[in-house]
Amino acid sequence: MSTPTKYDFGMIGLGVMGRSLLLNMGDHGVKGAGFDKDAEKVKALGDESTTGNLKGFSDVKEFVDSLNKPRAIMMLVPAGKIVDDVIEELLPLIDKGDLIIDGGNTYYTDTNRRFDYLNSKGVHFFGMGVSGGEEGARRGPSMMPGGDEKAYEVVKPIFEAIAAKVDGEPCVTYCGTGSAGNFVKMVHNGIEYGVMQLIAETYEILKKGLGLNNEEAGKVFTDWNNGRLKSFLLEVTSDIFQYKAPGTDHLLLDDIKDEARAKGTGKWTSQVAMDLQAPIPTVDSSVAMRDLSKYKEMRVKAEGIYGGVAAQLDVNKEEFLAALENAFYFNMIISYAQGIHMLTRASVEFNYGLKLAEIAKIWRGGCIIRSLFLQNIYEAFTANPALEHLLLDGGVANEVKGSIGGARTVVSAVTAAGIAAPCYAASLSYFDAFRSGRMPSNLIQAQRDYFGAHTYELIGKEGTFHTQWSAKN
Amino acid sequence: MSTPTKYDFGMIGLGVMGRSLLLNMGDHGVKGAGFDKDAEKVKALGDESTTGNLKGFSDVKEFVDSLNKPRAIMMLVPAGKIVDDVIEELLPLIDKGDLIIDGGNTYYTDTNRRFDYLNSKGVHFFGMGVSGGEEGARRGPSMMPGGDEKAYEVVKPIFEAIAAKVDGEPCVTYCGTGSAGNFVKMVHNGIEYGVMQLIAETYEILKKGLGLNNEEAGKVFTDWNNGRLKSFLLEVTSDIFQYKAPGTDHLLLDDIKDEARAKGTGKWTSQVAMDLQAPIPTVDSSVAMRDLSKYKEMRVKAEGIYGGVAAQLDVNKEEFLAALENAFYFNMIISYAQGIHMLTRASVEFNYGLKLAEIAKIWRGGCIIRSLFLQNIYEAFTANPALEHLLLDGGVANEVKGSIGGARTVVSAVTAAGIAAPCYAASLSYFDAFRSGRMPSNLIQAQRDYFGAHTYELIGKEGTFHTQWSAKN
Repeated sequence: MSTPTKYDFGMIGLGVMGRSLLLNMGDHGVKGAGFDKDAEKVKALGDESTTGNLKGFSDVKEFVDSLNKPRAIMMLVPAGKIVDDVIEELLPLIDKGDLIIDGGNTYYTDTNRRFDYLNSKGVHFFGMGVSGGEEGARRGPSMMPGGDEKAYEVVKPIFEAIAAKVDGEPCVTYCGTGSAGNFVKMVHNGIEYGVMQLIAETYEILKKGLGLNNEEAGKVFTDWNNGRLKSFLLEVTSDIFQYKAPGTDHLLLDDIKDEARAKGTGKWTSQVAMDLQAPIPTVDSSVAMRDLSKYKEMRVKAEGIYGGVAAQLDVNKEEFLAALENAFYFNMIISYAQGIHMLTRASVEFNYGLKLAEIAKIWRGGCIIRSLFLQNIYEAFTANPALEHLLLDGGVANEVKGSIGGARTVVSAVTAAGIAAPCYAASLSYFDAFRSGRMPSNLIQAQRDYFGAHTYELIGKEGTFHTQWSAKN
Repeated sequence: MSTPTKYDFGMIGLGVMGRSLLLNMGDHGVKGAGFDKDAEKVKALGDESTTGNLKGFSDVKEFVDSLNKPRAIMMLVPAGKIVDDVIEELLPLIDKGDLIIDGGNTYYTDTNRRFDYLNSKGVHFFGMGVSGGEEGARRGPSMMPGGDEKAYEVVKPIFEAIAAKVDGEPCVTYCGTGSAGNFVKMVHNGIEYGVMQLIAETYEILKKGLGLNNEEAGKVFTDWNNGRLKSFLLEVTSDIFQYKAPGTDHLLLDDIKDEARAKGTGKWTSQVAMDLQAPIPTVDSSVAMRDLSKYKEMRVKAEGIYGGVAAQLDVNKEEFLAALENAFYFNMIISYAQGIHMLTRASVEFNYGLKLAEIAKIWRGGCIIRSLFLQNIYEAFTANPALEHLLLDGGVANEVKGSIGGARTVVSAVTAAGIAAPCYAASLSYFDAFRSGRMPSNLIQAQRDYFGAHTYELIGKEGTFHTQWSAKN
């Protein structure tokens, strides 16, 4: 009898994402075992694997026993209670020193809880963000693992092998302790919400503001994606503008309902940003617009009362398109800047020890928000790891100064014409407030003290003060 | 021996708010007992009471025993664990059928938890929002009680006696079951955040955009408060612009730090709105700006890099001021509309059974967001209690149509000039999206399906669909 083969990596959950990641591993010579309760998914793994490196299991004990120690077991199951269930099922079967990796979009406090729980049992727990969708998982995703740094060494070679590569460097890095990986992925998704909404608003401006047809609008996105705006989301958009509804001559896009769904990571980003007092109004605005999109009947009624957007912009089309390219660039920069500032705040608050240069580096490839501009972010934080805010970097400031004029032109024009562009507007007003050495918030403090005796602080003086304002001294 | 006097209402926590409410009760012939562990506060109650209707206690048992049954005991203590502590202290001393009322800004899920807990012990629990600050508590607040409707009858006459009155009607109403009262108060505070930020942005526009000095800016607020914009927050602002720093010739306002604090109710409103998918971007934006205000050093650095606001607006001052008044009116309407829409959603989600006409009615007086315009809201929901959204009311629509032009003029001009007015911008872009029978969100659905296989829906067809978009059919 020959010794049965032992595997170096175990995957629980052989849906599209789990299977794709395993197949990716197989391609890179990793011996991987997969487990799923669904026999069809186990079979699918066998059918799709061509390397002889992978094996599927329907029995969880056999699956666990097939793994080399310390075992590295990743879950790709829906976030929530099922993660706890899988952990409980694994615990009697595994040993101290083994690793469990949750690859889902798990809320960061859930990961903290599981991290502490498994730590008390001597098991290493990782929350790992995986971005890139099915295609990324299969060909090279961007991965954001967080957990115990030393234990990460066990899986590091495997993850580096399967990750997307940019300039030969893998798009995976140890993010930090506890829930750092899930947190970084959450903010990644928040930025994604913001940029997607910016693209949608651009589409609205091109269509309603400039009167472009789909072909012309699609060409704008394609052109942009060939320049400094190059990014996965513009590439996606360019493709969508080339996809006709089957058997017709018009775009499938035109047939899709204008009600956007969400799985919640953008919402979490905004909610947590508010807890951290790290303002990310561009993301907030994108969350609000996804929500508003769901009130279709109400919007139709409102259009009946107030009229829809009628006015085309009275502008020189070529000049305006140039301004719009600048505006998009500006807004994309602001979206990243807000998200990264939130990470800076979270790193302090939660002691993650995030290395922002590393995070920018692994976002350059594989993930949904990959773009040429991430190279600039990478360089900014490489030059100054302690950079407080992306907009304070000299190189980024030059890009902002070169594009801000376009942003003003666009927001001013669409506002006057009644075309909704909430993310464009939110990014610009954030920037203008951000560069205000003095904000008008002294008035808010005075008001709060007036009606609530909440006190205020004085410039150049220690302490807090209260005044009977109505006395009109 | 004479029978000792029994009291009709008990107050725990004799700080400024608790004492003021009790004194208010005393003025209206209510026999009230107060309890505080701090003997000085008990003494203060005695010193300030002139009616002979009130008595302070330092012993909780004596306090409880002094109350007529069923006992009505209100707490005005800081929200959080201390509320639970007080409840535990009271439980052995009170009887089934007694009422406990939490008058603090308690998070609504905490109230739900306590409501269920006390319900299981046969005690009626109320979460009651109280607005109006010290002055309101003393002379007539707006109160938003939620809990058991039948038990509310016990305290209704007392609350109606002490509440602010508008047209002879008291500014208090039973809001709904469980946490309805705290929820209504939370949204009240969210609207308050929005309007306060609008006023702060107006101050910025007057100062930096029009170059008005403080006296001129103050006059604008005073004038506005004498017209259709009449509201407590403008009255407060008008007073603040008349208050000189003691012993100087300049406004105290100028000496106050531009870093706004917050106690969290605005943040809660935004976070919960996202959970309810009820977009309130004007409030979100005001929360973001309070947060941004705290990064003083960063803002000063940013001003060093990007320059502050230099450009005064190139406009006719009188005309622009007229547009600004319209813009403020428009934005105030939008702030209320968003908050009230959130209440509509919450009422469905949590079965509160909110009566929006009643809520508008009790907000007309006593509370921080009281304004002339609340009469319009009251009338809209009185005419149509099932009104889905304030902006769909015919009367309100006329006000919006009459003021939207000013909003466009202002946002367009300040955007071009680089003056930060995030709430003005957010309200306007919300409105423009709201009146879009078709939003560009179909593109977001296509993108989500492209990279995440999240599927999309088609106009006029049942079901969800998935496409391999990159095939560029």
